[in-house]
Amino acid sequence: MIPRYTRPEMAEIWSPETKYRIWFEIEAHATDKLAELGVVPESAAKAVWKAKDANFDIARIDAIEAEVKHDVIAFLTHLGEIVGEDARFVHQGLTSSDVLDTCLAVQMKRSADLLLEGMDRVLAALKARAMEHKHTICIGRSHGIHAEPTTMGLKFARFYAEFARGRERLVRARDEIATCAISGAIGTFANVDPAVEEHVAEKMGLTVEPISTQVIPRDRHANYFAALGIIASAIENIAIEVRHLQRSEVREAQEYFSPGQKGSSAMPHKRNPILTENLTGLARLVRSAVIPAMENVALWHERDISHSSVERGIGPDANIHLDFALHRTSGMIEKLIVHPERCRENLNAFGGIHNSQRVLLALTQAGASREESYRLVQRNGMKTWDEGGMLVDYLKADADVTARLSADQIEACFDDAYHLKHVDTIFDRVFAHD
Amino acid sequence: MIPRYTRPEMAEIWSPETKYRIWFEIEAHATDKLAELGVVPESAAKAVWKAKDANFDIARIDAIEAEVKHDVIAFLTHLGEIVGEDARFVHQGLTSSDVLDTCLAVQMKRSADLLLEGMDRVLAALKARAMEHKHTICIGRSHGIHAEPTTMGLKFARFYAEFARGRERLVRARDEIATCAISGAIGTFANVDPAVEEHVAEKMGLTVEPISTQVIPRDRHANYFAALGIIASAIENIAIEVRHLQRSEVREAQEYFSPGQKGSSAMPHKRNPILTENLTGLARLVRSAVIPAMENVALWHERDISHSSVERGIGPDANIHLDFALHRTSGMIEKLIVHPERCRENLNAFGGIHNSQRVLLALTQAGASREESYRLVQRNGMKTWDEGGMLVDYLKADADVTARLSADQIEACFDDAYHLKHVDTIFDRVFAHD
Amino acid sequence: MIPRYTRPEMAEIWSPETKYRIWFEIEAHATDKLAELGVVPESAAKAVWKAKDANFDIARIDAIEAEVKHDVIAFLTHLGEIVGEDARFVHQGLTSSDVLDTCLAVQMKRSADLLLEGMDRVLAALKARAMEHKHTICIGRSHGIHAEPTTMGLKFARFYAEFARGRERLVRARDEIATCAISGAIGTFANVDPAVEEHVAEKMGLTVEPISTQVIPRDRHANYFAALGIIASAIENIAIEVRHLQRSEVREAQEYFSPGQKGSSAMPHKRNPILTENLTGLARLVRSAVIPAMENVALWHERDISHSSVERGIGPDANIHLDFALHRTSGMIEKLIVHPERCRENLNAFGGIHNSQRVLLALTQAGASREESYRLVQRNGMKTWDEGGMLVDYLKADADVTARLSADQIEACFDDAYHLKHVDTIFDRVFAHD
Amino acid sequence: MIPRYTRPEMAEIWSPETKYRIWFEIEAHATDKLAELGVVPESAAKAVWKAKDANFDIARIDAIEAEVKHDVIAFLTHLGEIVGEDARFVHQGLTSSDVLDTCLAVQMKRSADLLLEGMDRVLAALKARAMEHKHTICIGRSHGIHAEPTTMGLKFARFYAEFARGRERLVRARDEIATCAISGAIGTFANVDPAVEEHVAEKMGLTVEPISTQVIPRDRHANYFAALGIIASAIENIAIEVRHLQRSEVREAQEYFSPGQKGSSAMPHKRNPILTENLTGLARLVRSAVIPAMENVALWHERDISHSSVERGIGPDANIHLDFALHRTSGMIEKLIVHPERCRENLNAFGGIHNSQRVLLALTQAGASREESYRLVQRNGMKTWDEGGMLVDYLKADADVTARLSADQIEACFDDAYHLKHVDTIFDRVFAHD
Repeated sequence: MIPRYTRPEMAEIWSPETKYRIWFEIEAHATDKLAELGVVPESAAKAVWKAKDANFDIARIDAIEAEVKHDVIAFLTHLGEIVGEDARFVHQGLTSSDVLDTCLAVQMKRSADLLLEGMDRVLAALKARAMEHKHTICIGRSHGIHAEPTTMGLKFARFYAEFARGRERLVRARDEIATCAISGAIGTFANVDPAVEEHVAEKMGLTVEPISTQVIPRDRHANYFAALGIIASAIENIAIEVRHLQRSEVREAQEYFSPGQKGSSAMPHKRNPILTENLTGLARLVRSAVIPAMENVALWHERDISHSSVERGIGPDANIHLDFALHRTSGMIEKLIVHPERCRENLNAFGGIHNSQRVLLALTQAGASREESYRLVQRNGMKTWDEGGMLVDYLKADADVTARLSADQIEACFDDAYHLKHVDTIFDRVFAHD
Repeated sequence: MIPRYTRPEMAEIWSPETKYRIWFEIEAHATDKLAELGVVPESAAKAVWKAKDANFDIARIDAIEAEVKHDVIAFLTHLGEIVGEDARFVHQGLTSSDVLDTCLAVQMKRSADLLLEGMDRVLAALKARAMEHKHTICIGRSHGIHAEPTTMGLKFARFYAEFARGRERLVRARDEIATCAISGAIGTFANVDPAVEEHVAEKMGLTVEPISTQVIPRDRHANYFAALGIIASAIENIAIEVRHLQRSEVREAQEYFSPGQKGSSAMPHKRNPILTENLTGLARLVRSAVIPAMENVALWHERDISHSSVERGIGPDANIHLDFALHRTSGMIEKLIVHPERCRENLNAFGGIHNSQRVLLALTQAGASREESYRLVQRNGMKTWDEGGMLVDYLKADADVTARLSADQIEACFDDAYHLKHVDTIFDRVFAHD
Repeated sequence: MIPRYTRPEMAEIWSPETKYRIWFEIEAHATDKLAELGVVPESAAKAVWKAKDANFDIARIDAIEAEVKHDVIAFLTHLGEIVGEDARFVHQGLTSSDVLDTCLAVQMKRSADLLLEGMDRVLAALKARAMEHKHTICIGRSHGIHAEPTTMGLKFARFYAEFARGRERLVRARDEIATCAISGAIGTFANVDPAVEEHVAEKMGLTVEPISTQVIPRDRHANYFAALGIIASAIENIAIEVRHLQRSEVREAQEYFSPGQKGSSAMPHKRNPILTENLTGLARLVRSAVIPAMENVALWHERDISHSSVERGIGPDANIHLDFALHRTSGMIEKLIVHPERCRENLNAFGGIHNSQRVLLALTQAGASREESYRLVQRNGMKTWDEGGMLVDYLKADADVTARLSADQIEACFDDAYHLKHVDTIFDRVFAHD
Repeated sequence: MIPRYTRPEMAEIWSPETKYRIWFEIEAHATDKLAELGVVPESAAKAVWKAKDANFDIARIDAIEAEVKHDVIAFLTHLGEIVGEDARFVHQGLTSSDVLDTCLAVQMKRSADLLLEGMDRVLAALKARAMEHKHTICIGRSHGIHAEPTTMGLKFARFYAEFARGRERLVRARDEIATCAISGAIGTFANVDPAVEEHVAEKMGLTVEPISTQVIPRDRHANYFAALGIIASAIENIAIEVRHLQRSEVREAQEYFSPGQKGSSAMPHKRNPILTENLTGLARLVRSAVIPAMENVALWHERDISHSSVERGIGPDANIHLDFALHRTSGMIEKLIVHPERCRENLNAFGGIHNSQRVLLALTQAGASREESYRLVQRNGMKTWDEGGMLVDYLKADADVTARLSADQIEACFDDAYHLKHVDTIFDRVFAHD
């Protein structure tokens, strides 16, 4: 957890306060059911709820844990200090992991819900900017080289589609991780009736884990962190695009630069894409959780605790960093300054060679072989590239070309609107279901 | 691709022969639609299908590629050698990636289908062994230490549940990856009507990619390889379990050892769990594709080709290794020798201390405090552990215990069937929907 | 940073207090040299050192940063509040990264030194236990299956050798990372003389970075984190060994269990190897820094800042977790309870089949072919394994064997001391240079 | 192994032919020593060498292995078919891993030597281009934004320094991996004298592994693959730089484009940086070996064989891909087309704002406060950026500036040579030791 990359909403989910609150709720609901089943006295169930509004004393719990070296026992001991004598019925037949793993499931589910809010904000921003720049023409680039025209709106739209897929995956990953296990020391329910698990699951907003072994199986968690890693990569995808667009030589877009902000201590004129560079790094951080989470899957026999230290790290960290990154991404997109006139300058910087494909087709349809067409276009295209000037003019001066195409036919190949005729189709595909 | 870890069925999907066959089909279907749209002559569409049953000459294509340094042009040139003059209409308005990426989608989809067959075999094996050993009692272990009884069937059942989840994820990952993009140099359909994409998608068993940018977005692939990584981790999970069960000191299960097989050049008596050790390593190999696949997501602008070399590696490798691993896993489970009598020996090796939890509960319910109960059980449990003998006897000789529990009550805590009373419940949960 | 896995010594290196202290020292030494070169007034250099014993007000710096959005400017502004007017000469010609990267180098170097102390403690513990158990015979296992005798001392000795290699690598990684760059905005020393860099390097205990580009090249850091990842894997290697030795069925060694410690809330008799399971997880966490650190190497042109957020995470985290893990490993080894009698019980549990290799050799040397020898040993070994009893007895009752070997010759194959005759040789190799 | 990314020199090291050749040499040298020690007859040692020039029949070995399911036994059986009766003395006291692991060490060492040749070629190319373009001025960029001038030579020089470090690490990694273990089933030399190991080590060009446990410890291999991963990242670093320089808007450098090469099937004018994009992907592939290699370190007890399948993949693959990448990098650098005139155009494209830092210093030295200087430079810098024109002119027209600096003083800030005055110093540091 890096303070500057932490939003309080997510930090709170992973705070000790929240953790003990969830432990309490699990224990209290379990005790309710145990009482109903006649395993513990009704009075015990009632007594437990006395701690409902209590503020658990974290320092006190830490002190007990330092002595007994067991976190759940420390908590239960402290709970006993609040609730009194009846606390001895709490946790009856449960094992620590019943509490710990179910609590983790609640934290993961809440984290997912918060991340989904973040994704919705990103999606809304992307959609708004896509609509705004649906027809803002700019050069499309493959290999960093000018190719054919596209629009700024299509860039936003493709990120939107990618985020929408990421959102779906996260919803599924959330639902997969949100299971409750109250199944005892080895998952056999030897000392606790499955009805307790069902009751706690319902009260905590979880589904029942069909088969656990003291622990909830870790493929669920691996899947969750993988989903986060892919979303982080989608953020990196946006970040790389913006960083490219903001390059000094490109300048088609620019992160918002607040009046008070100093770009660099040494070069005051610089407006650096530091938000998106930062997001690029955060993506690496979030992805770093994926392999450890997969290494956590194969535990020894019915469980070993090797996964626990990993999750104490990646549980909060990956969620917190991604949460922060989503909101940084949203803010960045919402305020991104797009320069349509600069887009057009770049588009036209190379004499219209981005239309060479059209000339190629026109030549082929006029009867030239693929090879001949290719050769004709290539030689005029390279002349334009090397010497400047307009491709259309070189073509009109090339006798081999004019033997195939009239001047009008050549000029028709250089109408940019031609490239954008299917933008509506694509937008319909992407945004139709919203 | 490591020959010894390669099944021909999967290797074939990734062979040059298959690749060129798919390329041909994409080009031929595209030409059909182009003809229907009037973009190319009907005769051209017909002519292309002349190559339907042709065996493409891979050496010839390689030779052309060595000259032109472009694989799709090399293929099209060779196609022209087969089809003749009309070949110049093929690929009209398409870009290489339209063919390459759609082909990759077909290969990934077929790979997924083959992997799903492998998973079904694993699932069937796990289910059969789960049913067979539903009531084969054995000790459950947490931290590698004896805990409470469980059954061998529950072990198989939990792996079944994990594989069933992995299967669902793979189905979704397959559906996500199975998209077709025929959208031209920058994804704008400038030179090819979207109807061509729709037609090819339908013919190739794919869905339409809503928005592409010369390439299909790589989050789809990242998600696929992540799904593979999690399945590989599930295989590792089984492998680790079997390796533990086969340890000399445990011997509850054992990989099948064929009569002709030599265990080791130096120690002829040894029966080593080499299949599951091998699977442990294969899991690491499959997982190694996950991060590169995520690094492939952020391409420059509308595409760069950095992902391609990565996919030439992980595309076949991860699919081939996992395919092999699934069948090795299946065979291993199908033939696994389980030793129920040895399970029972281990279960009873420590004087019944696995029932200490029950004694703890009995004491608490008889009025002892949690702390007192714990202390009483702990001191007798440790005596049993350190000195041998039966816990039940120590308890019956402990005046502090007998002050709370009668001899009958103590003995009732040592009935193993008690632990298995919910096995049916769990099996119902796991296998109910099959 | 996870509080429970953090030692204050390492946390302090990465605290804001330490960071600002190092920043101050870099700026102050730089100003000294700048004054000497006549770039800034002598009085300025003197003035700066007024802040030598100042406690920088972190809240105040944070507040300034919130406004100017630049950490170094915020610090310099605060420094000006302490030092006064002359502060305007501080940082003359430097760029922020000169301070940030040199500071990081100092923190990494100090971290390395602290880790080396931790490694020395581990090495000392391993050596002591190796000497103590040099001749404590136990069964060696390959594939988890009994093979031939070895000693507990050899186990410690091999971990010692592995840690000694890890130590050497860390020393080199430390020396590689400990460079100073004061080279200006793009590494050309345009506005700052190389003599400043040399001076600061010397004062801060660093070497001069031969060529920087605003930043110190990140292959140095990648190498550092890779060294940490390998040491973490060495810890995992020890952890896995101890976890195996502590298994209920093995019980050859056991983590120290303090009197007040409760093993599990539900099963009071259990003594779980929780330290080594925890170390297994920590190893995964430390390793998770390796790939991000390598992804940080390729920055755009003379620098982008994507590495920074990654390093804010992995810089402290990997160092802190490994530091903690080293001391947990040390303590665990120092106090590890070894059970020599239990080692011997396990060694002899399978009728002496671990000597089958020797019988094989004896048969071969007595004239049997490799194949025949193998067959004879295998059939008697398997009988011993399957039916119990002693291999030596089966062999003496096998006419095909006794046709080759006398009873004495057979019995001579079962002397355990035979296996340990080269222990001294190995110890000499491992510990000779200490 | 991907054929198109494989050079035959490296592939040969990892071929079955080479493997069996090395196995033979290890066995033959071991037999020599065993004969000398009197363990096997002299005649046996002589007989073995009969196979010295034999071509081992790989199909035959495969067939035997299919039956006995053990590769070394299969090889030894085949060796017996060549050598005859005396073959039964071969491999006496050895275990399979003695041969396998020592062979792997030989292959890794040879691979390292070949990679070092590749690195030397890269280094030579970088040095030559650095010298050639030592004074080719160009804009340096941080965050993708113009900063201050640097030279193309400094770019090559910094990659040179990074590769030189990578080379040193690889030399050390090679030396670490090049150890010989002939220590028997569990590493105790029970059945084979350490003198055999020493002899084989010397003959095979290896050092003696001080302590092995059937296997050579895997931290050595992890360190080797980590070294490869960092070199791959250094290649990525170069690749990213070239890809940026070749962007349509930048065009300061360009990969060599052979006359026959077609850039794209659709856009014939395009010259894409496909070599460096390819190298970017190959870097990801090589790095993917690092984590599995680290996961291989912690084997169970004296060995398990999980590492083996991993190494069958990453052993050849990482070496082959990096070998190919090094030569592709070399060729790319050797032929890279640099456009000095374009560098100068870009440098001057923004009205000289890259000199704003110098103006800032001049103002400060003329008595302005840091804040005032910053404000003055920022407002004129932003005007230049937003409106075009030359910064020097804006400054001369700004009364607040001219109140501090004369026109001459302002103009003196815009001399580019100023930025390059320490290029010699840096080159001396980087190339002095060659």
